[in-house]
Amino acid sequence: MRSPQLERDPSLPPQVRIYEVGARDGLQNESGIVPAATKAELIRRLGAAGLGTIETTSFVNPQWVPQLADAAEVLALLGPAGVGRDRPVLVPNVRGLDRALAAGCQAIAIFGSATETFAQRNLGRSMAESVAMFAPVVQQAREAGLWVRAYVSMCFGDPWEGDVPTGQVVAAAQSLMDLGCDELSLGDTIGVATTGQVHALLDGLDRVGIGRERIAVHFHDTYGQALANTLAALRDGVTIVDSSAGGLGGCPYAKSATGNLATEDLVWALHGAGVQTGVDLPALVETSRWLAGELGRPSPSRVVRALTGS
Amino acid sequence: MRSPQLERDPSLPPQVRIYEVGARDGLQNESGIVPAATKAELIRRLGAAGLGTIETTSFVNPQWVPQLADAAEVLALLGPAGVGRDRPVLVPNVRGLDRALAAGCQAIAIFGSATETFAQRNLGRSMAESVAMFAPVVQQAREAGLWVRAYVSMCFGDPWEGDVPTGQVVAAAQSLMDLGCDELSLGDTIGVATTGQVHALLDGLDRVGIGRERIAVHFHDTYGQALANTLAALRDGVTIVDSSAGGLGGCPYAKSATGNLATEDLVWALHGAGVQTGVDLPALVETSRWLAGELGRPSPSRVVRALTGS
Repeated sequence: MRSPQLERDPSLPPQVRIYEVGARDGLQNESGIVPAATKAELIRRLGAAGLGTIETTSFVNPQWVPQLADAAEVLALLGPAGVGRDRPVLVPNVRGLDRALAAGCQAIAIFGSATETFAQRNLGRSMAESVAMFAPVVQQAREAGLWVRAYVSMCFGDPWEGDVPTGQVVAAAQSLMDLGCDELSLGDTIGVATTGQVHALLDGLDRVGIGRERIAVHFHDTYGQALANTLAALRDGVTIVDSSAGGLGGCPYAKSATGNLATEDLVWALHGAGVQTGVDLPALVETSRWLAGELGRPSPSRVVRALTGS
Repeated sequence: MRSPQLERDPSLPPQVRIYEVGARDGLQNESGIVPAATKAELIRRLGAAGLGTIETTSFVNPQWVPQLADAAEVLALLGPAGVGRDRPVLVPNVRGLDRALAAGCQAIAIFGSATETFAQRNLGRSMAESVAMFAPVVQQAREAGLWVRAYVSMCFGDPWEGDVPTGQVVAAAQSLMDLGCDELSLGDTIGVATTGQVHALLDGLDRVGIGRERIAVHFHDTYGQALANTLAALRDGVTIVDSSAGGLGGCPYAKSATGNLATEDLVWALHGAGVQTGVDLPALVETSRWLAGELGRPSPSRVVRALTGS
């Protein structure tokens, strides 16, 4: 299998931690329901391919996301290896946290919004109300010794509100991080961001004390910008990147918001540039090829397509 | 129509010249033959959308590329506006140059290879023999006052030879530029490049006196790297970028080598970052939407798809 030609890019960090979101963010956007055994097998294979951090599933209300209603079953299939500090689960509220704790989880992620409209549509409440909803979740999680990540959606544009001012994103992120979260993931939910915005937002967060060492970037490829924006963030000091094996997933609430950054396309860029990720690219490509067969459609990852001839 | 949120990226140049290749590099890779009138209409529309430099067609042997056998007819339809110094045509040899001169062309492009295998497959002769073939073309073109560009293919990897050493690419480029060409376009024909290679090649060319002001980059998206590599080159001092309206084209000789960088995806990145291109993005998107209708298949540009809902 072809691999990229190695030539170190000194503007990139020597090492990047990939936060793999395919099993949760990807599969929750599948129209069909993937069997729990297939999900568990995917997570096992992703781990074997060297992905250190893997978001496994979501304890949201099954009525909202029936695709992940089997969260407890998937984790039971995985056993202790599926609930460590490197296997976060998404949690929307205290009830979800209780289910995560019952499953033995040691890491969770909460999800806020940078805009009022998306907060109302995705969480059914205002930005302030959603922070109030998350406050006891984070408090109880920390008391239980859990690692906590905060996602912020619509950081670079909103389908209803259009442009999103940087200061508004910083305030939204700060309100969640002030609850006591360990990590912040900046989501370009509709895929419109460009590199100047990336730098401006990182600078804005730095000014309120949220340093790049706690920040992950989560770009979508709707406008073809995901990898370019990711590399811009890495040149600017970020070292944590969200991506999705095979390019699975997107956002069901935003028109055209398809396409997480494919982990394979990211790994190609990083390994070629001499950046360590710990990922075994052929094993990952084989995993995405297998999953595409299970899902019955080709992977949107261009590396997967090029290397498997699909 | 949505446009990117403006936030200047100071690491990018204030202005970029786009060298539009869709009418030639794109349409020569169509399986069907596009009518000359449609080609002329495409070139007119691209010009009206603000693309300053447009490669219009190719005077290669029609037996090799029947898709562009109507080169003289297309230029006749365009009149004087189609043959200026900002409307280059591809020319493989002295016979092609004679046809270009007969059509009134004031700018040409020649195309060499960074590897022996591709030189043999694409040009039917060795690298040295192909330089010898191009020598009288460039000499006569310059005597006639024409502007001359040199393409070099396989600069970052070769499907038969694998890795391509930077020094070999520099030598190939230098041999063509030494003939007296005005501009050099570095082609990632199979789309495998990563950013460290981009910087290394630009440095290598600089060391032999080929400065960034004369260099264009031409990336393919086969492995999802085209925009990221392009922005890396722009951060490193390049200001000329090859791209293809709607993402038309690729290379028929290399497996999986589909996908020029889409001009719309590039313009989205640049306009968002405050880089001037002179391009009217809605007019360009409308042109690609129209052409997709003529060709009977959707544009591979993600910006075109997102903005037209296709």
